[in-house]
Amino acid sequence: MNFQEFSAEHRAALEETLRSQLGPVSVPLLQQAMGHLLGLGKLFRPLMALAVARACGQDDIGKLVPWVTPLELIHTFTLIHDDLPCMDDASLRRGVPAVHIQFDEALAVLAGDALANYAYLQLARNDNGLDAARRMALVESAARATHLVVEGQVLDLEGERRELSLDELKELHRRKTGALFSTTCEFGAILAGCDADVVSQFGRLGSEIGLAFQIRDDLLSLTSTDSEMGKTLATDIEKNKSTFPRLLSVDGAEQYLEDVLRGVDDSINSMGLVQPDVLRDIAAAAGHRSH
Amino acid sequence: MNFQEFSAEHRAALEETLRSQLGPVSVPLLQQAMGHLLGLGKLFRPLMALAVARACGQDDIGKLVPWVTPLELIHTFTLIHDDLPCMDDASLRRGVPAVHIQFDEALAVLAGDALANYAYLQLARNDNGLDAARRMALVESAARATHLVVEGQVLDLEGERRELSLDELKELHRRKTGALFSTTCEFGAILAGCDADVVSQFGRLGSEIGLAFQIRDDLLSLTSTDSEMGKTLATDIEKNKSTFPRLLSVDGAEQYLEDVLRGVDDSINSMGLVQPDVLRDIAAAAGHRSH
Repeated sequence: MNFQEFSAEHRAALEETLRSQLGPVSVPLLQQAMGHLLGLGKLFRPLMALAVARACGQDDIGKLVPWVTPLELIHTFTLIHDDLPCMDDASLRRGVPAVHIQFDEALAVLAGDALANYAYLQLARNDNGLDAARRMALVESAARATHLVVEGQVLDLEGERRELSLDELKELHRRKTGALFSTTCEFGAILAGCDADVVSQFGRLGSEIGLAFQIRDDLLSLTSTDSEMGKTLATDIEKNKSTFPRLLSVDGAEQYLEDVLRGVDDSINSMGLVQPDVLRDIAAAAGHRSH
Repeated sequence: MNFQEFSAEHRAALEETLRSQLGPVSVPLLQQAMGHLLGLGKLFRPLMALAVARACGQDDIGKLVPWVTPLELIHTFTLIHDDLPCMDDASLRRGVPAVHIQFDEALAVLAGDALANYAYLQLARNDNGLDAARRMALVESAARATHLVVEGQVLDLEGERRELSLDELKELHRRKTGALFSTTCEFGAILAGCDADVVSQFGRLGSEIGLAFQIRDDLLSLTSTDSEMGKTLATDIEKNKSTFPRLLSVDGAEQYLEDVLRGVDDSINSMGLVQPDVLRDIAAAAGHRSH
């Protein structure tokens, strides 16, 4: 099975779960702002978590859906806050107006706050038959990653003022992009009941896939339009940001991407996984996607 | 023992734990922004949670400190975001410049995000000998409350545009102030090992104490200066907000406060608690504090 088939199989359930997890309606305006971007993404992270669980031999992937949607809640929270006028000041996201444009700035801050928090609320709700120890492991993994993502955003804002070294840029994206990919893979392994060692191994794998995702993002940003990518690519602030092609040249960044992807593929092959097909294809898609 | 003695006994440990929970330093600028307001509050919520645990017969209160500091992390996150220019636009908080003044707006958003998330990271860290089921109950309680607080802030912003009814104002503050007080009392009961029924009873008690706290806040705001309260009291935006004295008159609000406090005292008396002294005094302090 490849990523596309896997996505087609699980996407509707993920979208439905995300919708139902936002209810019941208590303050409609907040709920609308929380939901504005939620179903519009590629759902790359929840799908990848499911692919990891499948790779580890988990058969009934469908029942894991309510435990992987929090990854999308966290991801969407970070996008909403990153787009704020005081951060990247981006007006387009996932092909629609950013939350602070569609609603206002206050509501964008609050919708982000609520989505981040909702991730934990979903993990804490005990009606899905996962034991408390494993749910606690998911909370810990998500909380560590979210902190790193916020740190990454601080480094990103600091980095606007000067050119970063390659090591600094990798360190920035290890946090800003890699951390949530790392947690995504950990989620899959935790849900499949893997040992702590294997969970950590998947965490490192996720970090490398996240690096590939980011290099590809930097490359796509050079050759795409806002509408092709569905987001504001280069705000005035971002124009001076360090990127992989800027530090390595386009050819150098493409070469570096292939090196990272080869390492990812080697890792997947060496882990002795039961059904690595979808995971391998998703990792390749992270590095070769066209939008 | 009264609140003052209890506070004197535990305050240093709470402050020390808050400091140590922010470490280790990874991105110093973020850590500074997270810590800017953290030690400067009255620590009312963590102290109240400890007082509830004491009321339930818990002897070794000191060992519970690392589990109640997340309440202060969440409370501080809500203050930082509430003070943002796009919300209440307040420049003074806890006697010092608000985070967005001392640093900048982006860092205030990110410091708030990080503090909210850190609460869950603290609850997830498994090195303090509390079982996963109880830690999960704390996560669930905190996540429910945080969502209500965010909802309350949305209602508060909506409420600036028109005069609220008394019921609407109570509903707003049940969320914005009451929810975290409710969780505060639930934390104490969960940590003392109480049954779910008793935990819920404490949740309702906390909500009433929060209401008393808010009525007192509204009354103090009428008669105090910014420097007495250590915060910006009436920004241009806030001047039109509905408050209890505005809807009920000052005398009416004072009378209502006494009614709420009498109800709280009756509840505490009817719960058959082992050591209710400090809790009773804290509840009275919530309604009669002078700043």
